Amino acid sequence: MSKQLADYVIDIKDFPKKGIVFRDVTGILESPAGFRLSIDELENAVKSNGLVFDKIAAVEARGFIFGAALADRFGVAFVPVRKPGKLPRDTISESYDLEYGSATVHLHKGTIKQGEKVLVIDDLLATGGTAAAAAHLVEKEGGIVAGMLFVLELLGFNARETSLKGYNVISLVQYQGK
Amino acid sequence: MSKQLADYVIDIKDFPKKGIVFRDVTGILESPAGFRLSIDELENAVKSNGLVFDKIAAVEARGFIFGAALADRFGVAFVPVRKPGKLPRDTISESYDLEYGSATVHLHKGTIKQGEKVLVIDDLLATGGTAAAAAHLVEKEGGIVAGMLFVLELLGFNARETSLKGYNVISLVQYQGK
Repeated sequence: MSKQLADYVIDIKDFPKKGIVFRDVTGILESPAGFRLSIDELENAVKSNGLVFDKIAAVEARGFIFGAALADRFGVAFVPVRKPGKLPRDTISESYDLEYGSATVHLHKGTIKQGEKVLVIDDLLATGGTAAAAAHLVEKEGGIVAGMLFVLELLGFNARETSLKGYNVISLVQYQGK
Repeated sequence: MSKQLADYVIDIKDFPKKGIVFRDVTGILESPAGFRLSIDELENAVKSNGLVFDKIAAVEARGFIFGAALADRFGVAFVPVRKPGKLPRDTISESYDLEYGSATVHLHKGTIKQGEKVLVIDDLLATGGTAAAAAHLVEKEGGIVAGMLFVLELLGFNARETSLKGYNVISLVQYQGK
């Protein structure tokens, strides 16, 4: 049987802390066949779900990898969603809660035009906090979130029913638990 | 006349400090035509320079955008070069000087195999410190740097004659000064 996308993910036990199995997506990237397969599957997921969009917004930093390759395949613009202090022009921002503390993401003002359809992409869906914040930034600018795309999803966080409720969420590989 | 790649770069005066003109590459990304043109030109630069390589190593975070799209076009693996604490497996690292202080980049151990040819890519060439550090990591692992590719280059830092001397350095858009 040929290698599946999940076979390229490297499980790292007790990282970043005891009891957690970290799903390392770099195992996909660092294989030519794995990387190609991941972008093929993202492209197919977009097409089979009939997603229509003008731009791809991707979350720093691993989201950039998948988002840029996909934006190139579809010939659309690539909109970076970044951590504070990284985007040089005027931005809008949104903060969200983490397990301990909070985080903030930024988007260049004026990058998303009224009514534009935006596909939000990141490598991993856990709580969905980052993706929800990115989606809210798109909406603040008048854009419409056409869908959310992830390579890996940790189902135990139940993001589809909580932080990302109401969005069209698609992932390539799902894991039970957190 | 059709729009050139340089036309998509946004000049931001006095950023990050007085007297500096910041060359904002996100103006390229955030245009569908600009992003497509940048990846086309990177692909053409690789081909016209006859570069032969097995993998693309890209520097976090903007380097990921161009590196990932290019790796997808050539069907090669994408090797992330990252800041400390970001790569989950064992890494090798290299530190380099900044204007004030220093910085360190990491590479997963074992990702580059002995004799593999690696194209190093980043969005901007200034002093060349980051690219040189990435190249040294590739070489520590036994890889060969097949070339270095940048979207923008600030010629005033003279990186080709200093930090990157001996490497095959290619850039798409050059600016006089720093």
